[in-house]
Amino acid sequence: MLSWVNGAPGEQLSVRDRGLAYGDGLFETIAVRGGRIPLLARHVARLGEGCRRLSIPLDLALMEGELQAFAGQLGTGVAKLILTRGEGQRGYAPPQPCQPLRILQAAPLPQYPATHAEQGVRLFPCSTRLAEQPLLAGLKHLNRLEQVLARAEWQDAECAEGLMRDGSGRVIEGVYSNLFLISAGTLVTAELSRCGVAGVMRAEIIEQAQVLGVPIELRDVAFDELLAADEVFLCNSLYGIWPVRALQAQHWPVGTLTRKLQAIVRRLLES
Amino acid sequence: MLSWVNGAPGEQLSVRDRGLAYGDGLFETIAVRGGRIPLLARHVARLGEGCRRLSIPLDLALMEGELQAFAGQLGTGVAKLILTRGEGQRGYAPPQPCQPLRILQAAPLPQYPATHAEQGVRLFPCSTRLAEQPLLAGLKHLNRLEQVLARAEWQDAECAEGLMRDGSGRVIEGVYSNLFLISAGTLVTAELSRCGVAGVMRAEIIEQAQVLGVPIELRDVAFDELLAADEVFLCNSLYGIWPVRALQAQHWPVGTLTRKLQAIVRRLLES
Repeated sequence: MLSWVNGAPGEQLSVRDRGLAYGDGLFETIAVRGGRIPLLARHVARLGEGCRRLSIPLDLALMEGELQAFAGQLGTGVAKLILTRGEGQRGYAPPQPCQPLRILQAAPLPQYPATHAEQGVRLFPCSTRLAEQPLLAGLKHLNRLEQVLARAEWQDAECAEGLMRDGSGRVIEGVYSNLFLISAGTLVTAELSRCGVAGVMRAEIIEQAQVLGVPIELRDVAFDELLAADEVFLCNSLYGIWPVRALQAQHWPVGTLTRKLQAIVRRLLES
Repeated sequence: MLSWVNGAPGEQLSVRDRGLAYGDGLFETIAVRGGRIPLLARHVARLGEGCRRLSIPLDLALMEGELQAFAGQLGTGVAKLILTRGEGQRGYAPPQPCQPLRILQAAPLPQYPATHAEQGVRLFPCSTRLAEQPLLAGLKHLNRLEQVLARAEWQDAECAEGLMRDGSGRVIEGVYSNLFLISAGTLVTAELSRCGVAGVMRAEIIEQAQVLGVPIELRDVAFDELLAADEVFLCNSLYGIWPVRALQAQHWPVGTLTRKLQAIVRRLLES
């Protein structure tokens, strides 16, 4: 598969890179269709925000151009972007100046069963909790051992995603998705100031809900509130929206608002 | 400098390695003197414990032999070992089976000012807090963004280390060291069930204190208790023990027990 390192074909990096040593970097998982990147501006904005918060200098215009060129060669598939702080001497102190490393890797679009989007998925209740770290909350950084541990908790193919909570038991997100619930017509999702990844599809859905005039709340979500919700769905930038049909003994129908938002983001992803 | 990948000379790894993608792996920073590894058994034991907790299959005897061969070629310096879960397809799910990647990199022994060990160091009070994640606490894993952020907080060369606390303000460790205090003849260090790295030199000092008959307590340590301590010192496997002489407005003399333990671990490191 297609793979670029700093804008040129390549499949390797130095063992001294800080992305490996410390997870000192960021990533984006990007859907590409017919050479086009539906959520390009959101991916670039999130990457820029991550660079700002981690003090990684990046020429965002260069990165965006490189991503578009890569997408043009890829055609249709997934582009995974990894940005690291680059190589460093021994020790945690960030090198001054640093030379960030840009990696782009192609993969096929994942082939999920059509039933996931149509009938919804069952959520596995992960026991791995998300630690609270405000300095990293929201970022799609390379420190992802919690997700690795959570995803290793289940093999049952019936569960397409796992539910992750924080140390206090609050509902945060899926292992590789964000989660929304709908109660009495209001759309609710976890605010992500202590942990979690602020997904680009989450941001898109928040904006689309505002356009539709749907009330939306970003706040703490208790587990009991999730169980009592009218509708629940997951989202990410690859599959759009999957309704959640079951978690433990609780079952949900696929709701009207979920279907409406799903159709909107599907058009967006496939346009 | 000397660099091996899976036992053969090499300086690169695949962009698809999970050590890069997720920080899915472990590391050890190992002092080597005259081809010998003073704390070999402790490093191997900690690596084995990390592999067990992260479910990374590793032939520990192979790893130990490889490390000894590398040390033989290195002579005197630092051997950094990075062990990752190896390459994987897209997604957090650990590949079954997986083929772990073993990286060994050489660096010179760091040349710290002699005054650090003789007169002690000043600690910088980091505002970056360690998040509480019991599943990863104690491990020397590759998710180290908190240490990167903490180390970036100060440039003042007068501060040789930074103090790291948890989200509740409890004293945990240095950015690249463990921390002990002595109060009324009792040696105290943070228990590491929620966060922190269980250093091999910390383990050695705990054992040496037991041999000396010094009472030792592993427990929560409040910031005020640190400030009120009779003696404070830092340790790691490269420099042994540094007395702490100052933190904010507080100053400490270099105490008797600190000197005694420092002499013991110096003999161990230099023998």
